[in-house]
Amino acid sequence: MKKAVILLSGGLDSATVLFYAKRKGFKPFALIFDYGQRHKKEIRQAVKIARHASCPYHLVKIALPWKGSSLLNKKMSLPRHKTIDPKKIPSTYVPARNIIFLSFAVSFAEAIGAGTVFIGANALDYSGYPDCRPRFFNAYRRAVSEGMKSGIEGKRIRIEAPLIRKTKAQIVKMGSGLGVPFPLTWSCYKGGARPCGVCDSCRLRQKGFNLAGIKEK
Amino acid sequence: MKKAVILLSGGLDSATVLFYAKRKGFKPFALIFDYGQRHKKEIRQAVKIARHASCPYHLVKIALPWKGSSLLNKKMSLPRHKTIDPKKIPSTYVPARNIIFLSFAVSFAEAIGAGTVFIGANALDYSGYPDCRPRFFNAYRRAVSEGMKSGIEGKRIRIEAPLIRKTKAQIVKMGSGLGVPFPLTWSCYKGGARPCGVCDSCRLRQKGFNLAGIKEK
Repeated sequence: MKKAVILLSGGLDSATVLFYAKRKGFKPFALIFDYGQRHKKEIRQAVKIARHASCPYHLVKIALPWKGSSLLNKKMSLPRHKTIDPKKIPSTYVPARNIIFLSFAVSFAEAIGAGTVFIGANALDYSGYPDCRPRFFNAYRRAVSEGMKSGIEGKRIRIEAPLIRKTKAQIVKMGSGLGVPFPLTWSCYKGGARPCGVCDSCRLRQKGFNLAGIKEK
Repeated sequence: MKKAVILLSGGLDSATVLFYAKRKGFKPFALIFDYGQRHKKEIRQAVKIARHASCPYHLVKIALPWKGSSLLNKKMSLPRHKTIDPKKIPSTYVPARNIIFLSFAVSFAEAIGAGTVFIGANALDYSGYPDCRPRFFNAYRRAVSEGMKSGIEGKRIRIEAPLIRKTKAQIVKMGSGLGVPFPLTWSCYKGGARPCGVCDSCRLRQKGFNLAGIKEK
């Protein structure tokens, strides 16, 4: 079986990608990051999702020496969806987050002989982070191909973002068809007992389920 | 003063780059990585170099979940310089090491408002790692420009590798002129009381000092 590394966050998108990779016949290995998020709930959910999918996983702990994002710093307030200016990058942006995650993923992939890395990024119903856009991924693929042994030897690691041009509703439908355990996934930027319902991530999720015509239990 | 982030390893090259950045008028901030190297000596030396240069630093601890490199795994033997096939990438190669280090550096740079990242990579007297070559850096610069807020806003972070086309002898001369505290720098892949003298890194260092006509104390 072909091996693949999956970036697993505990959210809807990366869970869908994990089940997509399995359906495509890959043997998945998940990387789950503890990068100092303001809550640990998404990490616990990611572990549950990996176990549910019988997918081996590594928890990678990163101590970022700065806290300039409302996703890292509990003293900063999280923006409500309604207050977000769609032309601006919101305060939840973590500089180079996907750049960091992908760098671990390609390193791990080469170390275990996996030819593919899957990431659940999407650039339609998203928060506007620049490292979720196709232009970024194309440039990053090139850098990985030039900077790694596998690339030099003509066996470059593929970086697949199968959700990149899908709406959240399409992702929900796709996940539903793949048997993604939706109740295990966590999207809310806050780590409460229940989703807050007003943050950007909650709103995108609700919109997805509503437009897909699928009810969350 | 313009801020810059410096990747500081404790070796000769990155120390030279730190003093180069200072000479160029930058206010440097060093990142020192503990990534599970087989010895901690280079980390201790990096801290001493940063202090010597009055440069603030962060120690970034990374737990790589794999050990497929003789630089990480003490059970693997380190290749002697003489046994290395120059056409092959040696076992000391750590997949995506510079890709990982740079991703932290650009994230940190954006967070603190630094416009430049300095890295001591060089592609002449080096161990053949693909992420030390100009082709890699050019591709990586593009990815960073596409994937970060600073790039989107037209203030892309510059990645400078001022040693990239220098021989080790040229680096030694440059470091000498800049007042680099050579005795504090550590190149040997092993962490003994004295350098082993036979690993690739020791040999490159010796060659540099010899050809530069500078004696190590």
